[in-house]
Amino acid sequence: MASVRDLTDPAAVLAELIRCPSVTPAEGGALSALGRMLNELGFDVMRPVFSDKDTPDVENLFAARGAGPHLCFAGHTDVVPVGDESEWSLPPFSAEIRDGELYGRGAVDMKGGIAAFVAALARRRTRGERSDGRVSLLITGDEEGPAINGTIKLLDWIAARGERLDACLVGEPTNPETLGDMVKIGRRGSLSAHVTVTGRQGHVAYPHLADNPLRTITAIAEALQAKPFDKGTEAFPPTNLEITSIDTGNDATNVIPGRARLSFNVRFCDLWTPDSLKAELLARVETARNGSKYRAGKEPAEVSFAWRGRPSEAFLTRSEDLISALSGAVAAVTGKAPRLSTTGGTSDARFIKDFCPVVEFGLVGQTMHMIDEHVALADLEALTEIYDRFISRWFAANPASRV
Amino acid sequence: MASVRDLTDPAAVLAELIRCPSVTPAEGGALSALGRMLNELGFDVMRPVFSDKDTPDVENLFAARGAGPHLCFAGHTDVVPVGDESEWSLPPFSAEIRDGELYGRGAVDMKGGIAAFVAALARRRTRGERSDGRVSLLITGDEEGPAINGTIKLLDWIAARGERLDACLVGEPTNPETLGDMVKIGRRGSLSAHVTVTGRQGHVAYPHLADNPLRTITAIAEALQAKPFDKGTEAFPPTNLEITSIDTGNDATNVIPGRARLSFNVRFCDLWTPDSLKAELLARVETARNGSKYRAGKEPAEVSFAWRGRPSEAFLTRSEDLISALSGAVAAVTGKAPRLSTTGGTSDARFIKDFCPVVEFGLVGQTMHMIDEHVALADLEALTEIYDRFISRWFAANPASRV
Repeated sequence: MASVRDLTDPAAVLAELIRCPSVTPAEGGALSALGRMLNELGFDVMRPVFSDKDTPDVENLFAARGAGPHLCFAGHTDVVPVGDESEWSLPPFSAEIRDGELYGRGAVDMKGGIAAFVAALARRRTRGERSDGRVSLLITGDEEGPAINGTIKLLDWIAARGERLDACLVGEPTNPETLGDMVKIGRRGSLSAHVTVTGRQGHVAYPHLADNPLRTITAIAEALQAKPFDKGTEAFPPTNLEITSIDTGNDATNVIPGRARLSFNVRFCDLWTPDSLKAELLARVETARNGSKYRAGKEPAEVSFAWRGRPSEAFLTRSEDLISALSGAVAAVTGKAPRLSTTGGTSDARFIKDFCPVVEFGLVGQTMHMIDEHVALADLEALTEIYDRFISRWFAANPASRV
Repeated sequence: MASVRDLTDPAAVLAELIRCPSVTPAEGGALSALGRMLNELGFDVMRPVFSDKDTPDVENLFAARGAGPHLCFAGHTDVVPVGDESEWSLPPFSAEIRDGELYGRGAVDMKGGIAAFVAALARRRTRGERSDGRVSLLITGDEEGPAINGTIKLLDWIAARGERLDACLVGEPTNPETLGDMVKIGRRGSLSAHVTVTGRQGHVAYPHLADNPLRTITAIAEALQAKPFDKGTEAFPPTNLEITSIDTGNDATNVIPGRARLSFNVRFCDLWTPDSLKAELLARVETARNGSKYRAGKEPAEVSFAWRGRPSEAFLTRSEDLISALSGAVAAVTGKAPRLSTTGGTSDARFIKDFCPVVEFGLVGQTMHMIDEHVALADLEALTEIYDRFISRWFAANPASRV
């Protein structure tokens, strides 16, 4: 078992976590290892397991220490699959170091972020700093999977215990190029749908007897992409729609297909709610459906719309002291003023924002989900220092007397 | 074995052929049965088998009698599969009669056409008519299949024997509603292609790092369908393009796909050759590819074009005496002036037209390829009379002295 001394070294902590093969949704020993470390650092560690009829059971961890203003660190120990293991330069679960880089699945996404936070806590304890208030870690084993039995249920479970979070830092990789580039202070919303068009199958030589759904699909694809949704806002880039798939599955060159499906995803700014955006999308599709374009003289085709999954709203963190505690810490360690961004994919911050203000900062994301995922030891050390300073700054701005 | 007397009854001939389960490419006894009948009628019967490394061996039949001007009847004994046999009201290979209709796979497409021609020949022999010239039957077992080891090779084989065809009647079903509706005097051309667009895969949240091929596919689909190719000609309907499939195969809503494929087929009139049409299609796709529509600021995507199969040219039969012998016979029996059409799908006439003028007339196509394919006995009798009169009319217009 690791000693408190060892836990101040983020590379040693990360190596121990990487050696647990916690490919989502497997726990792989990672939460147990983390729990032992946090026990040593004086945390109460709880391990709720959540179930659902359609998805695997998932192990989670909530650990907390102290009383007063409550700062939470959120993340996940599950990792994406390694792909073809033979393509890795170094084994994906060995945590070997080469040329100052530590290799392994989860090195940056995001066992590295967890290791830096644990090391920061260990250093504070080693330095004998007084407990600042309440610090907790909310760690799931289901961020890379369906995300049904993870953070979203853990947040309700914590609330049901009477815990209130005052602020949260998510340790996902946020930096595009170098450490210090970017802090995330919100996220665009996300909405996905399938549009199925049913026409009438027939022989290509007799198009008047058939109704080709790909004529309507063409008009819908145009209508979805033709007009910009907005120009973005101060905090958000413009709303963007991508058609992610069009599928027909008709191999016969002499057959007009009977049905085709188009899928799309929209990442949207805070000018839209999921409902207002759905209304706009339905209107665009309906206009395309009713237009005679490409299919003069035919009745509009049958079009059905299916929203996929739970839409996420756009959100923006408005807690100035949380944002400045984080960007101040980043600037102090890296010498750079990080961009405050709302770009990029979704993260569990979309669930946390309903409970407390949330910001995100972690490692450089360039090798995440790839073969040879790795992290620079220098980045791990710098991130540990940033987290250490961030904790100090946030508690300084949120003294116990104010809560 | 059938007697000459029996062969004058097209229903008896058809029943014998239907009872041979010649689902393509199986011979099923059908060509052997036909060969025996033709032997009885004084024909020399040859049974060439053609092979190819990629497709099954196929049995064929060529039977000829007489000397002088050469009139050929072309068709096929292979039939399409029966589908779910339990859905048939009467067994598909039993040739049972109910309410004046003979049921069975191939009843109209096109064992019925062959039976009517055999019965017409038997009646002519029974009546003691003098041999009119040279009559032949060119029958393949590979019209419903790949059509590689069938008519196209049989035509070369016949030519290599020094035979010259002067005119050909294809006995495929040509009538949309009732017997006498339509004679086919040519066909549109047909051209198929796959267009593959390769972009760059990426995360939907970072579209600037990816290149969505479905943006280019949308522009290509528009360009292919937006502008009519022509208005048709006197003998041909307008050229028509159908997109037959668009496929991506990307189930992840958060992933921009790396590649997508669009397939189309064009049925074209005699204003185009396959080459001039290809040039027009390539120009439309190239314009769409280079346009910035839907993907401002990006280099044109990689687009590859693959023509599928052998294109067929548009053709029109210009032999007035052949057309008038056929439509005159149709009018005399049915009392209707048949439309002279170039509509519909391709047939083996596309190969025959390189050897001699070709026209097509057969049964009513409504139940072809369907469950419960059947033919009215009255139509079989009428078609036999039409073929009988057609033979007389054509030889009257093409006496031996003129050849």
